[in-house]
Amino acid sequence: MSDNLLKLGIPAGSLQDATAELFKKAGFNIKFSSRSYYPSIDDDEIECLLIRAQEMARYVENGILDAGITGFDWIQETQADVHEVSELVFSKVSRRPIRWVLCVPEDSEIQSVHDLEGKRIATEAVGMTKAYLEKHGVNAIVEFSWGATEVKPPRLADAIVEVTETGSSLRANDLRIVDEVLQSTTRLIANKTSMKDEWKSGKLKAIALMLQSCLAAEGKVGLMMNVRRSDLSKILDDLPALKDPTIASLADPDWVAVNTIIEKSVVRTIIPELIAAGANGIVEHPITKIID
Amino acid sequence: MSDNLLKLGIPAGSLQDATAELFKKAGFNIKFSSRSYYPSIDDDEIECLLIRAQEMARYVENGILDAGITGFDWIQETQADVHEVSELVFSKVSRRPIRWVLCVPEDSEIQSVHDLEGKRIATEAVGMTKAYLEKHGVNAIVEFSWGATEVKPPRLADAIVEVTETGSSLRANDLRIVDEVLQSTTRLIANKTSMKDEWKSGKLKAIALMLQSCLAAEGKVGLMMNVRRSDLSKILDDLPALKDPTIASLADPDWVAVNTIIEKSVVRTIIPELIAAGANGIVEHPITKIID
Amino acid sequence: MSDNLLKLGIPAGSLQDATAELFKKAGFNIKFSSRSYYPSIDDDEIECLLIRAQEMARYVENGILDAGITGFDWIQETQADVHEVSELVFSKVSRRPIRWVLCVPEDSEIQSVHDLEGKRIATEAVGMTKAYLEKHGVNAIVEFSWGATEVKPPRLADAIVEVTETGSSLRANDLRIVDEVLQSTTRLIANKTSMKDEWKSGKLKAIALMLQSCLAAEGKVGLMMNVRRSDLSKILDDLPALKDPTIASLADPDWVAVNTIIEKSVVRTIIPELIAAGANGIVEHPITKIID
Amino acid sequence: MSDNLLKLGIPAGSLQDATAELFKKAGFNIKFSSRSYYPSIDDDEIECLLIRAQEMARYVENGILDAGITGFDWIQETQADVHEVSELVFSKVSRRPIRWVLCVPEDSEIQSVHDLEGKRIATEAVGMTKAYLEKHGVNAIVEFSWGATEVKPPRLADAIVEVTETGSSLRANDLRIVDEVLQSTTRLIANKTSMKDEWKSGKLKAIALMLQSCLAAEGKVGLMMNVRRSDLSKILDDLPALKDPTIASLADPDWVAVNTIIEKSVVRTIIPELIAAGANGIVEHPITKIID
Amino acid sequence: MSDNLLKLGIPAGSLQDATAELFKKAGFNIKFSSRSYYPSIDDDEIECLLIRAQEMARYVENGILDAGITGFDWIQETQADVHEVSELVFSKVSRRPIRWVLCVPEDSEIQSVHDLEGKRIATEAVGMTKAYLEKHGVNAIVEFSWGATEVKPPRLADAIVEVTETGSSLRANDLRIVDEVLQSTTRLIANKTSMKDEWKSGKLKAIALMLQSCLAAEGKVGLMMNVRRSDLSKILDDLPALKDPTIASLADPDWVAVNTIIEKSVVRTIIPELIAAGANGIVEHPITKIID
Amino acid sequence: MSDNLLKLGIPAGSLQDATAELFKKAGFNIKFSSRSYYPSIDDDEIECLLIRAQEMARYVENGILDAGITGFDWIQETQADVHEVSELVFSKVSRRPIRWVLCVPEDSEIQSVHDLEGKRIATEAVGMTKAYLEKHGVNAIVEFSWGATEVKPPRLADAIVEVTETGSSLRANDLRIVDEVLQSTTRLIANKTSMKDEWKSGKLKAIALMLQSCLAAEGKVGLMMNVRRSDLSKILDDLPALKDPTIASLADPDWVAVNTIIEKSVVRTIIPELIAAGANGIVEHPITKIID
Repeated sequence: MSDNLLKLGIPAGSLQDATAELFKKAGFNIKFSSRSYYPSIDDDEIECLLIRAQEMARYVENGILDAGITGFDWIQETQADVHEVSELVFSKVSRRPIRWVLCVPEDSEIQSVHDLEGKRIATEAVGMTKAYLEKHGVNAIVEFSWGATEVKPPRLADAIVEVTETGSSLRANDLRIVDEVLQSTTRLIANKTSMKDEWKSGKLKAIALMLQSCLAAEGKVGLMMNVRRSDLSKILDDLPALKDPTIASLADPDWVAVNTIIEKSVVRTIIPELIAAGANGIVEHPITKIID
Repeated sequence: MSDNLLKLGIPAGSLQDATAELFKKAGFNIKFSSRSYYPSIDDDEIECLLIRAQEMARYVENGILDAGITGFDWIQETQADVHEVSELVFSKVSRRPIRWVLCVPEDSEIQSVHDLEGKRIATEAVGMTKAYLEKHGVNAIVEFSWGATEVKPPRLADAIVEVTETGSSLRANDLRIVDEVLQSTTRLIANKTSMKDEWKSGKLKAIALMLQSCLAAEGKVGLMMNVRRSDLSKILDDLPALKDPTIASLADPDWVAVNTIIEKSVVRTIIPELIAAGANGIVEHPITKIID
Repeated sequence: MSDNLLKLGIPAGSLQDATAELFKKAGFNIKFSSRSYYPSIDDDEIECLLIRAQEMARYVENGILDAGITGFDWIQETQADVHEVSELVFSKVSRRPIRWVLCVPEDSEIQSVHDLEGKRIATEAVGMTKAYLEKHGVNAIVEFSWGATEVKPPRLADAIVEVTETGSSLRANDLRIVDEVLQSTTRLIANKTSMKDEWKSGKLKAIALMLQSCLAAEGKVGLMMNVRRSDLSKILDDLPALKDPTIASLADPDWVAVNTIIEKSVVRTIIPELIAAGANGIVEHPITKIID
Repeated sequence: MSDNLLKLGIPAGSLQDATAELFKKAGFNIKFSSRSYYPSIDDDEIECLLIRAQEMARYVENGILDAGITGFDWIQETQADVHEVSELVFSKVSRRPIRWVLCVPEDSEIQSVHDLEGKRIATEAVGMTKAYLEKHGVNAIVEFSWGATEVKPPRLADAIVEVTETGSSLRANDLRIVDEVLQSTTRLIANKTSMKDEWKSGKLKAIALMLQSCLAAEGKVGLMMNVRRSDLSKILDDLPALKDPTIASLADPDWVAVNTIIEKSVVRTIIPELIAAGANGIVEHPITKIID
Repeated sequence: MSDNLLKLGIPAGSLQDATAELFKKAGFNIKFSSRSYYPSIDDDEIECLLIRAQEMARYVENGILDAGITGFDWIQETQADVHEVSELVFSKVSRRPIRWVLCVPEDSEIQSVHDLEGKRIATEAVGMTKAYLEKHGVNAIVEFSWGATEVKPPRLADAIVEVTETGSSLRANDLRIVDEVLQSTTRLIANKTSMKDEWKSGKLKAIALMLQSCLAAEGKVGLMMNVRRSDLSKILDDLPALKDPTIASLADPDWVAVNTIIEKSVVRTIIPELIAAGANGIVEHPITKIID
Repeated sequence: MSDNLLKLGIPAGSLQDATAELFKKAGFNIKFSSRSYYPSIDDDEIECLLIRAQEMARYVENGILDAGITGFDWIQETQADVHEVSELVFSKVSRRPIRWVLCVPEDSEIQSVHDLEGKRIATEAVGMTKAYLEKHGVNAIVEFSWGATEVKPPRLADAIVEVTETGSSLRANDLRIVDEVLQSTTRLIANKTSMKDEWKSGKLKAIALMLQSCLAAEGKVGLMMNVRRSDLSKILDDLPALKDPTIASLADPDWVAVNTIIEKSVVRTIIPELIAAGANGIVEHPITKIID
């Protein structure tokens, strides 16, 4: 049985609930208990361990975990040698990649990475920052920041390398972005030895398939409508967004039922066009997984 | 580009979340920020402004806004000259029209509007109340109330004109309803000049169409079932609630698939009848938009 | 009209929200008011009364209520003579039957019910415990516990009979389970005289049907896919989980649309198999009621 | 050492925080832990146990506890044979005795306890209610109520016996008080055998002394002022509320400092009188314990 | 008895808790009930009524109330003809007067009130704003704002008149203060006819005395120390902050006890000086009322 | 003016509120704003900066701050060369020193630091742990832990060095303490160059004096009583806890007033003794600062 057990790291903190929710949609119920760092999961072949995103890659690399969910940023920061099974691209509507950026005070004289020579930089990502400076041939003091990094300039640091999603915290602290150091999305990573185990590798691919089918469904809806058989080809020609619809015969031979999956963001523009083109009884319904 | 920009007022306060939720269903993501009264929306052709429902009609009338969402009551109160694009009738199940009512203490001698001559009336809607009194030819003192109007009688006022949804706050303060002054539902209104601009007018109609399709779907569900071809016409005759179903052929030529949209409130009575009539594999599924 | 009125007890406390939610799915909107124990329901033929689960069976038995929702445990505890209309088996994924267990301190010498002779037992379910002891021919002191029963051993009691779902509270108090006294699930019960009234009996069966159709749907989803007509019989043979699918003809005569309802827990294993078997455009969608 | 250990029951629930706060003022720090029913206390001679007020007297009576804090009502309800060490009369300003009252619906025909013959009474205090009925020679059905007793009449009970502090919950449920069954305040009780142990008895009396000194101080403040030596006797004669003040000599032989402890509720009337009588530099200061 | 009843308005909203707390310190317990606008008070000669600060002066002026607590701003806004009994100057440490200010966008061309000619001004205080403009001989449009006034410029107004305590909300909305329209503190006001009633006038003065004695004590503490009799006069000369101390004889004739009341803000500077001057056993203690 | 400005670091996080509260008692009002890391303080000679305790010593050492409040642990961890102005020993009753301890799983074979050779240790205090290992001549792998360190053994680490106050989190994770690495209390530290500036050094000493006077007062109360002059010397002899009382003459020459400051924890034992010795009118009152 131990051969058929996948040790999976779940990221504690900001990604924790989103990860559990995604797994739930994918059919795996992860339950956290306030007293334990071993969440339960309703799949006897998986054992979960709750770990900080920052430490995930390290424990996957050294084999304590077979696989784990973490951000690309922390994989880079730790320089861990792991296999990336899948990039988990959350729906564009709700979540964008996060960015690590080099920032200075609005009125700083620093205009590019090259002006950092000899300066003091505060960051939670010391490794990533040093690698970035080295790439540009710049020498600077990089200090580990325990938090609240964005309030350090100009008193406590000349510049910072900090994560941002919307930039609002940077603006509120009168910081100016000088350069982007890294873009990061969430990843499912695996230990390289584990990937050579056929069972573990197959299990991880199946998990990735289910997670991806849910992520793909997040930004999509189903659209059903009745269309006169005579209008059908014109509608399909005019509205390429209705790609590969299922065309079902109806009792009334003059009409067909068209059933398709489209991007949520397209619905508000395509529905007026469908009405104009003669579609009838248009109904939108939710979907929860899709595999193209 | 400025020609193709619709300035849209979102009502702050009690209608704010419901409005954002309805727009989200309709495909428009409005995001509020705690520090800004300019909510973001994921449509470059719309610019949102958060404004009190009470002030909406005034700013739509004078053209600061092209359009806005507010209650019929405040349109009447301000006597603003605006175009009503659409009445947003929220699902009857969950939301009823709100009512402005004339109330007096349970043991007051006032029995009708005509007994108000010379009395003192407290209300947040001074204009509406004065218009109502004038219509009935009654002279009374109308005082603006800054809030907690329902506790003013009998000490601080002889009567009040106050908004109510369920009447429970009135009962708790031992008030009796003498008359209904106004019924009010939510409206999408537009500036009259903006409505003459073809692009703005078209944009508003498309928005209204999407909002209405969501509201229409709120009280409905999809119902799918298999029916013996020989039972079909009898079922459709007996159950007129199954109006205009989609009848799809099945592999088994003796059976058809019936797919229809019905009122949620009808489901609990129709399902026992469908079973009795021989329907098979009945499944209810949610829908999110419908355009009849 | 009084003949056509069903007096229905809703359990206050831990089952209250779950009951209201289930009724809502079934098409009945129950609304609680913080000041009233008479929740409103949008069915003129039903009158609700909010009552503790512990007292429900007593009031159903004596006819103050026609029917009510409560746990099997409290029916047993009160020895009430009522008719069980339906067992409401909540989805196995999220809710297991609760268990009443006999517990002692980890290091107690008590190993079975027979070691309880002359001991002191604390419990909220005095009747159930006495019946259990009698069944095993054991004499012991049974004391009513007002709460926090699990902390009483060893100081305040030698053993307890206590309800548990996951056992975590028992473990936290260093208690060991000696025996299971009772398993309990939620029940819809009715007064025996009310069941002889044809209208009431019919009404209750219709309610039970709707509740059951929602419970059945909780652990299921709809799965739609396109399959080559030539692959169809092999897929159906290989994947018995796809039982009784609806096979619809498509415009393209070489393909059919397969639409089926399956257990949520099966999805994660069947989808990889469907892909391998040549299914195409697989989409999962939610369902809210199902009557097989 | 075991001889010098006092086992003390702290009432869980509504009295818990007030008890801990009173002990803290008295110099004993009780600390609760969310996982334990054995609160810590910074006195090695005391061991605390957290127990429901309803069960306290039972466990004090049978010697599991040496002493405990509970209400007079539950002592009566359980008919426990215990020694009352001290009545803890909380400050009249903030807390009144609680009352158990017999209530009926406003429009009930029941006017006195004698109208209860054969009626059904719901109560959490079955023993107390039966004793009360017996005292009045009335036979009635007394049913244990698991809670929400005040909403039971008239449907589920003809009358109730329920606890009330302000009567507001009774009024909100349209209940009328027919009779008072019992007044109750908090008590420190002890096991009768424990009271015969000299050390335990002495320890309990010292605890009671400290608790009483805090309770006595709750409604009092210190008042300091300077008074002309010549005005002193007149002030003391005119203002008997200034009982037993400390009169201290001052450097200036014409003046004395008067320092006294008075009821908080008297301050607002006595200060204007003191000013009129020539007192000077009046200062009020808080006190935390007082032993007269 | 009705002659000896003072009807007192308590301001609902932001001043409500501070008012109740001040009265409590002064010896009057006001209790609010969530269902009633008639707070209870433990003085049979007073009847409280909870009223918005904005409406207080109006109801005091017309005699519905004998007295009330409100801000100077709303007295001015309503131009009510009332008697000011007392200004309640809250401790400078914690509360500053609030200010109504004329604001414009940072980059507005408006530099003084005279630049407002013909402009649109939004404000909650229409009367105060019109009076201010009139005083400066300026004509402008003054619109009532229902709230969120500070976000209106520049779109919805050219300028605003708004209340501010710290200015932080103004800065956050990029507004610049052009002028101060009014400073306001809290006042105890009375109806002019009520003030002619000797009992009511005396009662109000006694209430004001108690409130003032608490406010005066808020920023002060008591300081006790022992001083060598020979050092005394030098200490008192050097430290005028120790005004009018009480000098008490001690058993040891070489020492005296010095007891005085000083400003809290002075303590941190005077204590090092006292030590240097030879004071001994310095103790600071809280005081709750002081009448100089 | 810049010469007379003290830059003071306030520790963000767990010590923040306690620090602000202590400064408030000492007469300095620090106000935090949610948007700023520069708290305001009502002393123009001080400028506050909110900084993590972990980083405080570093910024004090390099002169960005003149002084700061932090824990002894983080001073050690960073090996910063700073001057310790004062140890802030919080009252023993409520706060004990925190301890950094070396822990292993309950069933680990590790019994002392010497068993750690070659093992993996997780900790937030890498510097402190390495210094500790070096002192004992042990080589081990020390890994930085981002949090939740106590759940790492045995999977992710063989041992941990972790902070603990009560040990409850360690027990909950089945960890055993092997050794204490460091005890830590809060310190006021200063930059060494700043301490050579006479004004800064004097200012810091005055601040420390005020903070200490408040801490000293935390565990103490004032006790006043009247004693017969003839009993006085015996009482003082028998009760050495009444050290250095102030003995004031009273108007009645047979009695004296005794006023003293004693430890709170002594009160509960001394009061019964005082009563027995004839003391009269014993009153306890709070004190807020004391300088012995």
